[in-house]
Amino acid sequence: MIKVCGRFGVKQVDITRVIGGDANRGPDDISVEEPLQINVGWDDGHGFNEKTIAITMRTPGDDKHLAVGFLFTEGIIASATDVESVKVDGTNAVTVILNRGVRLNSSILERHSFVSSSCGACGKRSIAAVRIARRYQIAPGLPALTPDVVHVLPGILRGAQAEFSLTGGIHASALFNPQGKLIALQEDVGRHNALDKLIGAELLAGNLPLSDRILLVSGRISFELVQKAAIAGVPVIAAVGAPSSLAVELAAECGITLLGFVRDKRFNVYIDCRRILQPTPAVTQSSKVA
Amino acid sequence: MIKVCGRFGVKQVDITRVIGGDANRGPDDISVEEPLQINVGWDDGHGFNEKTIAITMRTPGDDKHLAVGFLFTEGIIASATDVESVKVDGTNAVTVILNRGVRLNSSILERHSFVSSSCGACGKRSIAAVRIARRYQIAPGLPALTPDVVHVLPGILRGAQAEFSLTGGIHASALFNPQGKLIALQEDVGRHNALDKLIGAELLAGNLPLSDRILLVSGRISFELVQKAAIAGVPVIAAVGAPSSLAVELAAECGITLLGFVRDKRFNVYIDCRRILQPTPAVTQSSKVA
Repeated sequence: MIKVCGRFGVKQVDITRVIGGDANRGPDDISVEEPLQINVGWDDGHGFNEKTIAITMRTPGDDKHLAVGFLFTEGIIASATDVESVKVDGTNAVTVILNRGVRLNSSILERHSFVSSSCGACGKRSIAAVRIARRYQIAPGLPALTPDVVHVLPGILRGAQAEFSLTGGIHASALFNPQGKLIALQEDVGRHNALDKLIGAELLAGNLPLSDRILLVSGRISFELVQKAAIAGVPVIAAVGAPSSLAVELAAECGITLLGFVRDKRFNVYIDCRRILQPTPAVTQSSKVA
Repeated sequence: MIKVCGRFGVKQVDITRVIGGDANRGPDDISVEEPLQINVGWDDGHGFNEKTIAITMRTPGDDKHLAVGFLFTEGIIASATDVESVKVDGTNAVTVILNRGVRLNSSILERHSFVSSSCGACGKRSIAAVRIARRYQIAPGLPALTPDVVHVLPGILRGAQAEFSLTGGIHASALFNPQGKLIALQEDVGRHNALDKLIGAELLAGNLPLSDRILLVSGRISFELVQKAAIAGVPVIAAVGAPSSLAVELAAECGITLLGFVRDKRFNVYIDCRRILQPTPAVTQSSKVA
């Protein structure tokens, strides 16, 4: 369903655009999101060592600069002279090879040793390493939503977001029922935190899986947010902003309806229209009888 | 300079608002960003164990739910019955204590053991743990910018951002010279990646410290972005969106001029007006002589 376009970092997908009560199918461009494994290699005098420092979800392109910049801004290398060479391994891994004599700060390396040993160098394996096992199957078809319910969600969110209007600098995550009633709202400077707060509260209240809930997020939607929602069993995710390619792919795999650019009485259905009810044309009593 | 307001998750700061060529001083509200240390505690039959799983930069509030939600969506706990209790330690640490018999997945724990052992439980120490040592001192006063140069930056960025107009789902980081000329631009679904790509390229080109550059980011500005810019020696950070409280604090500490909401011929100076030249009133030759 997703094919790589001529343009770098962009994929084309077929989506359904809903404007008011009308729906049209057509192509759309989304930003590519894929994991990059960043490795460091060095010779300690006894042989060559290699260590995976991080997996970051990034848009492919300039991966060598990303790896070198990451190692520098995380304090792992101190200057360009620390770098002997930078090697691209496949599509989703980069190894920065250090010059002889560069001493690695072991406590900083320790801080970054969060990648499991099962994680290999190829894209597929890296993706596998960032995936968490899901606990719930998401049932198809339900809940069923009218476009009108979707259209009202952002306005309700904005109304409830007292803080947003004050600072303009905070992300929101909210749960709605299928009738568009706001059930819970959390805010945070980190969008993943806002969602974790929501899910943590629902977990402790015994409300999981969230099979009768719509999740609305105030910004863009990444792989990580879809994954967190999937683990909590959320069947519909709506975002005021755009989804990434990996967010779309994971939603498809999990059977989650994914809506983006939900604002101004419009939205895009990236995945699974079956939960969006087609608007029934207005029918008068007389025409019905006729 | 920053004081906690009555409202939760919000701090008030004094800023300079520049509108066109005019500047006014006054209060503004910003979202609080602080590190939260998430710990797990469990009894393995031989005694009580405790392990720090993560430090996340979050807005304080509902920390217990955040910790429980994080552990659940990261696959470390499987249900509410795994949780015996949740304990708040000071202002910036939470320990989730597991019920007896809950088995922790050691490979998942391994994935999250990226916190250095020097990291304690109090806020100060947590903040210290997420800080990277800076390599450059940032000289005060330079570069000096006119408001007009700042006003044109977002338009130049948008013009150069071919991808943004296509997908609406990508962050940009750009470097400008003090005359407002675009020097380098990077895009990524992750804002930290876009900045790391910029810095990595400049590092390898031998251009660090970036003491004569303005960094413009397309979204909000977090602690992490200010830290990365500071490590590369950037003296001026401009953001189209809002800064967090910790972004403002770190910019003040590093002597970085921090501008937010740079758009529509307006911007806010959160830190250090001394690099922003006051517009000189129009003076005619005759009045000068007089």
